[in-house]
Amino acid sequence: MTITTTTTKTNGAKPSWEEAARVKREAIFASLPREYLIPEPLPSPEEQRDVTGAYAHQFLTQREIEITETDAAGIVAKTTTGEWSAVEVTKAFIHRACMAHQLLNCLHETDFPSALATAASLDAHFAEHKKPIGPLHGLPVSLKDQCHMKGLDTTMGYVGWIGTHEGDASSPLYRNFESVIVTELRRQGAVLYCKTAVPATLMAGETVNHIVGWVRNPKNRLVSCGGSSGGEGALIGFKGSPGGFGTDIGGSVRIPSAFNGLYGLRPSNGRLPYEGMANSMDGQNTILSAVGPIAGTLASTRLLAKAVVDSEPWWEDPLVHEIPWREQEADAVRRQGKLVFGVLRDDGMVRLTPPIRRGLEAAVEAVKKAGHEVVEWEPPAECAHKHLLEIATQSWSMDGCDDVIKAFGLSGEPPMPHLLLDVPATPGPELPASAIAALNVRKRRTQKAYMDFWSSTAKTTSTGRPVDALLTAPCPHPAAIENQFPFTMYTTFANVLDYTAAIVPTGVVVDPALDAREGGMQWRSDLEQRIHEKSFDPEIQKGAPVTVQVVGRRLQEERVLAISEIVDEALKKAS
Amino acid sequence: MTITTTTTKTNGAKPSWEEAARVKREAIFASLPREYLIPEPLPSPEEQRDVTGAYAHQFLTQREIEITETDAAGIVAKTTTGEWSAVEVTKAFIHRACMAHQLLNCLHETDFPSALATAASLDAHFAEHKKPIGPLHGLPVSLKDQCHMKGLDTTMGYVGWIGTHEGDASSPLYRNFESVIVTELRRQGAVLYCKTAVPATLMAGETVNHIVGWVRNPKNRLVSCGGSSGGEGALIGFKGSPGGFGTDIGGSVRIPSAFNGLYGLRPSNGRLPYEGMANSMDGQNTILSAVGPIAGTLASTRLLAKAVVDSEPWWEDPLVHEIPWREQEADAVRRQGKLVFGVLRDDGMVRLTPPIRRGLEAAVEAVKKAGHEVVEWEPPAECAHKHLLEIATQSWSMDGCDDVIKAFGLSGEPPMPHLLLDVPATPGPELPASAIAALNVRKRRTQKAYMDFWSSTAKTTSTGRPVDALLTAPCPHPAAIENQFPFTMYTTFANVLDYTAAIVPTGVVVDPALDAREGGMQWRSDLEQRIHEKSFDPEIQKGAPVTVQVVGRRLQEERVLAISEIVDEALKKAS
Repeated sequence: MTITTTTTKTNGAKPSWEEAARVKREAIFASLPREYLIPEPLPSPEEQRDVTGAYAHQFLTQREIEITETDAAGIVAKTTTGEWSAVEVTKAFIHRACMAHQLLNCLHETDFPSALATAASLDAHFAEHKKPIGPLHGLPVSLKDQCHMKGLDTTMGYVGWIGTHEGDASSPLYRNFESVIVTELRRQGAVLYCKTAVPATLMAGETVNHIVGWVRNPKNRLVSCGGSSGGEGALIGFKGSPGGFGTDIGGSVRIPSAFNGLYGLRPSNGRLPYEGMANSMDGQNTILSAVGPIAGTLASTRLLAKAVVDSEPWWEDPLVHEIPWREQEADAVRRQGKLVFGVLRDDGMVRLTPPIRRGLEAAVEAVKKAGHEVVEWEPPAECAHKHLLEIATQSWSMDGCDDVIKAFGLSGEPPMPHLLLDVPATPGPELPASAIAALNVRKRRTQKAYMDFWSSTAKTTSTGRPVDALLTAPCPHPAAIENQFPFTMYTTFANVLDYTAAIVPTGVVVDPALDAREGGMQWRSDLEQRIHEKSFDPEIQKGAPVTVQVVGRRLQEERVLAISEIVDEALKKAS
Repeated sequence: MTITTTTTKTNGAKPSWEEAARVKREAIFASLPREYLIPEPLPSPEEQRDVTGAYAHQFLTQREIEITETDAAGIVAKTTTGEWSAVEVTKAFIHRACMAHQLLNCLHETDFPSALATAASLDAHFAEHKKPIGPLHGLPVSLKDQCHMKGLDTTMGYVGWIGTHEGDASSPLYRNFESVIVTELRRQGAVLYCKTAVPATLMAGETVNHIVGWVRNPKNRLVSCGGSSGGEGALIGFKGSPGGFGTDIGGSVRIPSAFNGLYGLRPSNGRLPYEGMANSMDGQNTILSAVGPIAGTLASTRLLAKAVVDSEPWWEDPLVHEIPWREQEADAVRRQGKLVFGVLRDDGMVRLTPPIRRGLEAAVEAVKKAGHEVVEWEPPAECAHKHLLEIATQSWSMDGCDDVIKAFGLSGEPPMPHLLLDVPATPGPELPASAIAALNVRKRRTQKAYMDFWSSTAKTTSTGRPVDALLTAPCPHPAAIENQFPFTMYTTFANVLDYTAAIVPTGVVVDPALDAREGGMQWRSDLEQRIHEKSFDPEIQKGAPVTVQVVGRRLQEERVLAISEIVDEALKKAS
């Protein structure tokens, strides 16, 4: 999407939505220190697809490169011991984040002066006490723009939310309220310095809104950074942040992790605190969104998730269960020796495009080579993705788009065509209570059937245990071509089931020499055909990373991260 | 309510609802072994109010009295060591349960031959292996008639459900399906021998339906056994069961526990398995019902809850959290020394009647005497019970009574006047999705406000910790006079907040000499006046037990039971 730059002004007091968006867009840009910007003119995406690595390094000092190319776990090893100062680390990431925004459009809000003040006070604390204030002492952490932070807007990509608290211009909470996860991260020593772009409504696998435009993938700027936590994906993929938090109601942590070749975790609901976050369709309780970390390594992903759980969020968020971080569960996995993976090669709706098949196969071969067992994952008909899709679709559209129509209506901006929701001009019919109850029962029965099937695999594995985790693709195609992301079920099935799921890069990248489009196929649907013909183009997606999804059962975050580590090591050893 | 005994038969194939109810009622009675019945004529409730103790003993052998007056914890101490046989214990409870039904109408289903076969196989197992199959080896356990057991009906008090699976006459699940809690209890060695009465719809603080009629209180047959787990309350109160499980969406475990002078626990949602139970308004997900134990002692209550959690129900129920039984949490409470209680003397809507005030005061004085601190519990206005009542009422009526009208409509029976739901002839307007979403947001914000208030009490307690638990009455009046139970908020506030709550008898009983009606009061509402003038009559309720409710935060089952033990010991020492 080309950013609209017209400056039409209405004759009344209220500016047009285009004007309001332009003012906000310019304010974001103006908040970036001049000395951190890449000198103009910038190369076009066609001229410079990949802006990571050598391209980025030319604008950074050796020291900045050293810092920003250290993972979050490596950074806290130095900032919690006084080896690196929080201020120096924060400055380096601010510099790289500014470049990221210039090249990718990934930021919504910045808080650099406050972040540097926080970093300075952390350094002072360390100088005085010779110990860190928490496990994230001095670590810059980026946040999806659903998190409220004092002093900052939360627009969530809606023009009508600019200068308001969730659309309410007179709310006393405006710029004066913090989400629980923000409080917990501060308590653990994190330095919060920016909030990242989302698609308005959050219901998209790309990131686009009328404020910042379409957000690009740092590995290949012709394709999408994913969504809805796409600003996180782009920023962390560019190493403008060592790690951050997104949210996931249908894949929104995992899709950007996948498209940017990162690690990400979708925890089950009730593990990490969602309290006090802005949201779409808040109060829709059939499928809940979950907060989860994205980072450049699994160790960093665990660091972020564990730090929040160790902060005991169940005293701050009434929906978080009192389940401490159980590293013994991870240890149990590591001691188990042989694991059994179920591989889902085809969900019955959309078969995988060639590079994605290659990636999944690489993971399968790698874990087999490492001594693990892989079985075909064939759940019963009642657990088929087409049924889960109906549950998800009804959950997300039960209010007839009432909520998102109101939010767009605040400014008069039109919905973007990239959305997975088909937003009508006026709200469609809403589901009544009895239909929602029936939907909730259907969902629970599906969860039960899936659970029973999973347990039943103990009868067929060589270990006598049920399958330990699933290996699936997160998406049937590589990082999306603009407006060609129509299907989320490879991630969404885990949301319907409330399963824990992580993303692990396979090392495979799209290669036109290996990944030709397949002609003459019998497509099972227009959707499948569209994805293979429009959502996949090896020339455009060349170099885009391919990842694999590791899915565990409900509330198995520690196990899923440990199993993901085993997959990751196997892939690295095999490549 | 007088049981309808007319035998009108329609001329078509389908009997009238009265006839269907009569046939079922007679079948229940016919399933009781003749030798276990009290010789007729039975005394009227007026002639023999209290049928526990000496009255019951005259029909039992010394050995039967010894067994049935041992608590569940005491029984398993003998059945898991081979000292008592499961068959002998089961027979004794079957005998007493038959008497209970004759006197109180508390049974819906019996399974005595199967239970005795199970008991015999448990005895054989012990004889062979010299060890029990689980912590409940040989313990008879009764279940509310929402639990499905193979071979038995589940009517849930609906005439239209007789001979069907939840109203579906052609379902292959009919008599061929078990709820997860049934499976878990069997696995732990329990002997399941009967299912107990409920009010049709479950939405009543009394237990009444057209099959068994109005269920009486064994301590005083002029008053109610409570509801909706009232059959459990009556049966356990009569010692026809050493313990069982009810469900609680607004107080339905706690009210029968309170009215029968028993111990009961309402766990938070997701701790004990609800999967596969029949329910009213299934799929209403704003306030969920929870399964919880009722027993004659706290040790027995813990035994039942812990046995189910130790069975790891999270592998069978997709909504149960993987939280093992944390006895270390109870130990921490015991080591804490001084506790701080918040006492709620008045919920702002209905003040307590005199005997209930005496009971609450007895608990307050007892814990003070034992060295604990008691502070007045005064949450902020947004947490007031009148707001929580609105949330509960909207949750329970969001479908315009569609579900219960359909269930009554299967047979054509009319709703009973005792219900807390005002059931219209045809379904009223349903809440649409956006209104339900707004309700869910309101509920979550109220939970957050209550949580923050509770945490803030750390600033004012002498221990520096937040208040450890609340002491409240479970109900403003004693065991209900028929059709005079209009108000549940002293229990329901904990459901709205998803808090853990237990019932502890105070030793206080209604005494006309001490508990006169209060005249000349300024009532705050017609409801408050009605409760003091109609729901309380010291002459009718004479001898009814008074209990106290101990409320802890979400998922604090172990702590709440440990704190309840401290309250219980203090009360026993003080009396």
